[in-house]
Amino acid sequence: MRTIDWVDGAIELVDQTLLPDKCVMLRVRTVDELVEAIRRLAVRGAPALGVAGALGVVLAGGDQEQIARLRAARPTAVNLARGVDRAAARLGEGRAAVLAEALRLRDEDIAACHAMGERGAALLEGERLRIMTVCNTGGLAAVERGTALGVVQTLHERGRLAEVLALETRPLLQGARLTTWELARMGAPHRLVADSAGPYLLARGGVDAVLIGADRIAANGDTANKIGSYALALGAERAGVPFVVVAPESTIDQDTPTGEHIEIEDRGAEEIVAVRGVRLAPEGTDALNPAFDVTPHDLITAIVTERRVIRP
Amino acid sequence: MRTIDWVDGAIELVDQTLLPDKCVMLRVRTVDELVEAIRRLAVRGAPALGVAGALGVVLAGGDQEQIARLRAARPTAVNLARGVDRAAARLGEGRAAVLAEALRLRDEDIAACHAMGERGAALLEGERLRIMTVCNTGGLAAVERGTALGVVQTLHERGRLAEVLALETRPLLQGARLTTWELARMGAPHRLVADSAGPYLLARGGVDAVLIGADRIAANGDTANKIGSYALALGAERAGVPFVVVAPESTIDQDTPTGEHIEIEDRGAEEIVAVRGVRLAPEGTDALNPAFDVTPHDLITAIVTERRVIRP
Repeated sequence: MRTIDWVDGAIELVDQTLLPDKCVMLRVRTVDELVEAIRRLAVRGAPALGVAGALGVVLAGGDQEQIARLRAARPTAVNLARGVDRAAARLGEGRAAVLAEALRLRDEDIAACHAMGERGAALLEGERLRIMTVCNTGGLAAVERGTALGVVQTLHERGRLAEVLALETRPLLQGARLTTWELARMGAPHRLVADSAGPYLLARGGVDAVLIGADRIAANGDTANKIGSYALALGAERAGVPFVVVAPESTIDQDTPTGEHIEIEDRGAEEIVAVRGVRLAPEGTDALNPAFDVTPHDLITAIVTERRVIRP
Repeated sequence: MRTIDWVDGAIELVDQTLLPDKCVMLRVRTVDELVEAIRRLAVRGAPALGVAGALGVVLAGGDQEQIARLRAARPTAVNLARGVDRAAARLGEGRAAVLAEALRLRDEDIAACHAMGERGAALLEGERLRIMTVCNTGGLAAVERGTALGVVQTLHERGRLAEVLALETRPLLQGARLTTWELARMGAPHRLVADSAGPYLLARGGVDAVLIGADRIAANGDTANKIGSYALALGAERAGVPFVVVAPESTIDQDTPTGEHIEIEDRGAEEIVAVRGVRLAPEGTDALNPAFDVTPHDLITAIVTERRVIRP
């Protein structure tokens, strides 16, 4: 199954808001539909957003206003804008060239995730590894295989995975809904934990490495990723556990010198005060909802890409 | 309103599982009912559990099996066992003496929370303070006023509170359900945040102090409190923000030398895989659910009790 692809003249993508209850493919025929799908996180994950951006340019058919709106649909992940720009650069050569470029990006993502899996698994020492992760960085965040969860998949295929501790990832519960679903499909042993338990479970022992993805990596190695990543990095540092970022080269943004220059999306109160339609807090409660945080490079043991291992 | 009290020959307590939707008083006439109310967190919070334990001995009427069961209903908070022991020590003097001892404990709690509010407010510098807190440490965790949230209340009464950032406190959402409800009743400005955002918001600036309660403080100052406290302590240390524990002297357990000796309750998978009746994770997902964590004393700026300020 591919999370996102080009099928018979339209984008097809898994509607991730319906998982794990239902696995529904959505056909997206216009940029408006695509922007809405991105905003409500029907498609999410930095690599998948890159492919969505590139394929979206095919749908835009040269309309610059639509292309600009697509490019800005989510601000933190660099891959969306990169995917848009790469496909848009071929607009002068006609629709077929734009589509070919977008499909090339899709295929490169598939290959990159395989390579990251290999490289990440080679980096980690030990034969029965207990991995902690946050959010969803599996096939659902990319095209076929994932980034950090791609490394987990490689470890599992080689019999080197003891267990995954998956953080539930409030507010939108990508860990509880998506990562557990993918791990169950892989047959990989896993347990779910509340986000706030991550740093404590690192202190208590029982975790060999923390693996996370990235939405944007600044030139100095500071890494924006799902909210909660920074807390895990603090916990990993204190516990002496390796903290490893797994992301394609396309996530590294040399134009962003440090983490301070990364725009952090605030997704508003509604995601915090209710969950899956159930109200959690009193009516009228306001909330602050940064969807990402920035982990300073000094807390990162290694960044694994499809080409190299960077030690910030 | 009192969270817990002795009224007409029975314990009356606010059923906190129904807040913030409904504020219902529960009449508890037997130890069985009380143990069930404690286990399902209808009554919770270390000071309130102390009063519940003492009043429960009145209900037990000298039945040692019932007293032992009540004492062990929740393992982490020391106050429950302390309250039971204190009332049970008067059993030889008859029921009236046991009740009088339990009511003395209730009254001492009320006075202690007032004193902690004064002492905590005096400790903090600045005129417009932005406070971060986790779980619920307000009147609902005690009898009338709270511990950490009692300090917030004192600050607010004196016009020194700018805002509270309240962590929602998964899995049982005491922050989202109870702390917001209490702050709204006080008229204190507040915003709710996901637990995982706490350490990042500390790093970003905008918080002057972290105030938390405690379930058990070891002799060396290591503090067991609601899961997520340790992550905030790590974030506060890195950000240079004071991290202050507010708890009555009765929470300090000289018989527990360090945090390693504190039993941490695991409350099982069900609280993690569902919230307020809504399923979050695929059927069959297992979870790890430590309800508390331990913050090492070196991360604690000060412990404020009704008698003193301890700097571990």
